[in-house]
Amino acid sequence: MTEMETKEKTTIVLFSGDLDKAIAAFIIANGAAAYDHDVTIFFTFWGLNALRKDQKIAVKKGFVERMFGKMMPRGAGKLGLSKMNFGGMGPQMIKHVMKKHNALSLPQLIELAQEQGIRLVACTMTMDLLGLQAEELLDGVEHAGVAAYLGDATDAKVNLFI
Amino acid sequence: MTEMETKEKTTIVLFSGDLDKAIAAFIIANGAAAYDHDVTIFFTFWGLNALRKDQKIAVKKGFVERMFGKMMPRGAGKLGLSKMNFGGMGPQMIKHVMKKHNALSLPQLIELAQEQGIRLVACTMTMDLLGLQAEELLDGVEHAGVAAYLGDATDAKVNLFI
Amino acid sequence: MTEMETKEKTTIVLFSGDLDKAIAAFIIANGAAAYDHDVTIFFTFWGLNALRKDQKIAVKKGFVERMFGKMMPRGAGKLGLSKMNFGGMGPQMIKHVMKKHNALSLPQLIELAQEQGIRLVACTMTMDLLGLQAEELLDGVEHAGVAAYLGDATDAKVNLFI
Repeated sequence: MTEMETKEKTTIVLFSGDLDKAIAAFIIANGAAAYDHDVTIFFTFWGLNALRKDQKIAVKKGFVERMFGKMMPRGAGKLGLSKMNFGGMGPQMIKHVMKKHNALSLPQLIELAQEQGIRLVACTMTMDLLGLQAEELLDGVEHAGVAAYLGDATDAKVNLFI
Repeated sequence: MTEMETKEKTTIVLFSGDLDKAIAAFIIANGAAAYDHDVTIFFTFWGLNALRKDQKIAVKKGFVERMFGKMMPRGAGKLGLSKMNFGGMGPQMIKHVMKKHNALSLPQLIELAQEQGIRLVACTMTMDLLGLQAEELLDGVEHAGVAAYLGDATDAKVNLFI
Repeated sequence: MTEMETKEKTTIVLFSGDLDKAIAAFIIANGAAAYDHDVTIFFTFWGLNALRKDQKIAVKKGFVERMFGKMMPRGAGKLGLSKMNFGGMGPQMIKHVMKKHNALSLPQLIELAQEQGIRLVACTMTMDLLGLQAEELLDGVEHAGVAAYLGDATDAKVNLFI
């Protein structure tokens, strides 16, 4: 067994499309990477919205997929809160206090994750279901299915579903 | 130690009664079983609703338990979404795209889980609290408490709370 | 390696401020402690509300932090449900059936956790963001950041995010 194989592993399934949960996921992920873990975040269902580019991308879609695309938040800057969303006032309050305390914003946390080599993996099955196409997601995002997730999770010490 | 004891284990606590989270739980569980893990799903609180039979079962209940029984969705076919439920339109949209992409429905995923030998365990304490009785749940469901869960989780590599 | 170092470890991140999820977290935690695990619960974001003292504590705060303080539930006795909250009727129903079945209430579960030596750790970063100060939280609560969590989680067999 080589030195590299002994690195601890952490996986997170980010199912939620809520700003507060996505922040928690990326803080744990970035912490684990700083702690020298191999970290993978699997984005499934609403969690995929955190990976969307913030501009509209021209792609061909069916009617229901187009509706999902319109109704779901376009990117990390548009997510709502799981609690106390108050029609968007809650996210503004959270962003305000994060800035005040010099905490990284979600887009900055995602950038840091990519710089630290955290693997961001979009679940191909839910991309199909929600009609999200590779061009609509951030550059550098990988694509894989549940088998890849389980392969990583089985080797990891810390596995969370958020 | 025999060959059999070395099988990997996966446990999932399904707390949520949301269609999308239940689908995610069963996709991971069925994937892990296909990957040759021993898999157990513990259903607690609203997660128990995924195990209810879809017809009304005649059982004696107290007033509050009867109210819970009426207000909670009766079975995997009746669950709502955690996001974008839109009074039931969201679940229809998800079911539509799942059918279109030949993805298994939640009732089919549950059936597959039982065929693959995944243990479906109903939490006895929350069955008591919500007034759900064994006859109201799908055939083949086991019943156990938190001690049984912890025994399994301690031996497992992948433990998720959904 | 000494006998003590071989004790199993369990960690729970309690992110949610919902009564039902907090009950689930404390039932698993108390079960694991009874099962002789070293157990740590990390309270982050809305989960911190379960640790608030139920009376108002006089502390200096900024405007947004004061608003968060007023809008968030003050302590384990005030939390709402993740589902079927019905403006507070749901929590009353749950408390009613828990009492009827002689189940411990959330404040009692927290007390038991402290008696069993479960470490209750408040996330310092989210305390800062939400403007919660040490005096506002229950006595005996520790304070730490994500690095402490990851240190514990890497040694633990069971790690849940609730």
